[in-house]
Amino acid sequence: MEHDADQSHPRYESLLKRRLLEQAAAKGMLADSALIAHGRGEAFDYLLGERTTASANAATAEACARLVAAKRAVISINGNVAALAADNLICVAALLGCPLEINIFYRTPERMEALLSHMDERKVAASKSPPPGFQSSLESWHASVEQVEILGANPDGRIPSLEGPRAKCHIGGILNSDVILVPLEDGDRCEALVAMGKDVLVVDLNPLSRSAKMASVTIVDELTRFSANLITEICRGAQQPNRQWDNPANLQAALDEIAANILSD
Amino acid sequence: MEHDADQSHPRYESLLKRRLLEQAAAKGMLADSALIAHGRGEAFDYLLGERTTASANAATAEACARLVAAKRAVISINGNVAALAADNLICVAALLGCPLEINIFYRTPERMEALLSHMDERKVAASKSPPPGFQSSLESWHASVEQVEILGANPDGRIPSLEGPRAKCHIGGILNSDVILVPLEDGDRCEALVAMGKDVLVVDLNPLSRSAKMASVTIVDELTRFSANLITEICRGAQQPNRQWDNPANLQAALDEIAANILSD
Repeated sequence: MEHDADQSHPRYESLLKRRLLEQAAAKGMLADSALIAHGRGEAFDYLLGERTTASANAATAEACARLVAAKRAVISINGNVAALAADNLICVAALLGCPLEINIFYRTPERMEALLSHMDERKVAASKSPPPGFQSSLESWHASVEQVEILGANPDGRIPSLEGPRAKCHIGGILNSDVILVPLEDGDRCEALVAMGKDVLVVDLNPLSRSAKMASVTIVDELTRFSANLITEICRGAQQPNRQWDNPANLQAALDEIAANILSD
Repeated sequence: MEHDADQSHPRYESLLKRRLLEQAAAKGMLADSALIAHGRGEAFDYLLGERTTASANAATAEACARLVAAKRAVISINGNVAALAADNLICVAALLGCPLEINIFYRTPERMEALLSHMDERKVAASKSPPPGFQSSLESWHASVEQVEILGANPDGRIPSLEGPRAKCHIGGILNSDVILVPLEDGDRCEALVAMGKDVLVVDLNPLSRSAKMASVTIVDELTRFSANLITEICRGAQQPNRQWDNPANLQAALDEIAANILSD
């Protein structure tokens, strides 16, 4: 599985993501376990056929509907998320007019600083990019990107029932949000957010994980594909949220896909 | 999935292995992709139920039979293997009277030196440990361990059809071996070794990988469990090699186990 990256390589996409993570590690953005967690994701994505399945598309549309209908949406960003999907999620935040909040499990001042500076850098890059979906003028799009708040530096609230620095959050961000998109979230924190009564939208390639099982809507998809699809979905115009959304059934569909891929090989 | 390690933790074993890899990374033993590769393995092991299955036991017994019957067995060691199973594999080499050869895909002088020094350190530790299976006196066991050759420093041969430094090997080790145990091997190198007419015994948690499919015998098991089981198997006394060994059928059994675990959840 170890090769040099060139665009013709059948694993080019996967090698590109590894590069992004290696660069993020060099910048001090990642916890020790980040690369191992990414590898776990790679294995599940491989079993899903490295493509967005029908059930993932349905979950993405539902997540989009809930984010668009939210009163106070927020997008939670950890190290791997910042490394892989900063640009796409800044774009999502600009389209939704919601804040991003850097919220990591292993919080140290150094990692927080590295993440905040990376996100600021990506926000500048995003503000210079063309608007997605040709929906707005260049000027109004750039203004929307510039207005995206990146929280995390000065947390003034705590997530109840979590201990230590991992509980820290912003009152104007995660704490008072009604809908939260938390890609690649730890099980304990996902549980704590659900216990707060929030609508918790999780992106997790492992349909058997505690986060996947506990979330309100679980998107079993690779983060860069999901975040690109979410942008398309928002630009297309969201449907109404489906309050009868059957998350366990959607997870079962992902498991069925994996089992079918394994047995058809 | 991120927690501090304590023995009561349900993921203690898994956290312990991560620590070993983090220490190995700090010593310069690992390539950039090593932690990601470990994460992929973790995901497959999770899907196997983190236990040695019946089909893995059968493959371990067959690998043992072939190693014991070999004229010139060799055990190939890369970064992750050295980090996770140096002690067990030094013990296997002492029991078989065969060399270990450090053979890595991304060969740099620094990594080779870090690996050689780690293996030497573990050999000293192993020579002070009690013999496995109480089969020999302490003295004769220590002599067996001390006689284990650790090759890799001065490769004088090349694996045909591989390019660059990754082809380097020892004539008295990998090149002239008839049976080679290569845990966690890259697909290209596995293919090259099979093309040389060797009996190639691979340990790989992904039954769909190219290495897994190409090997003579594939043990779909986690390396530390496999290497401990191999020691037990050697001490118990090996069976005769089964020249009708059906590797694809054994891989299918592993896939069936994974599919059953996924669907029974």
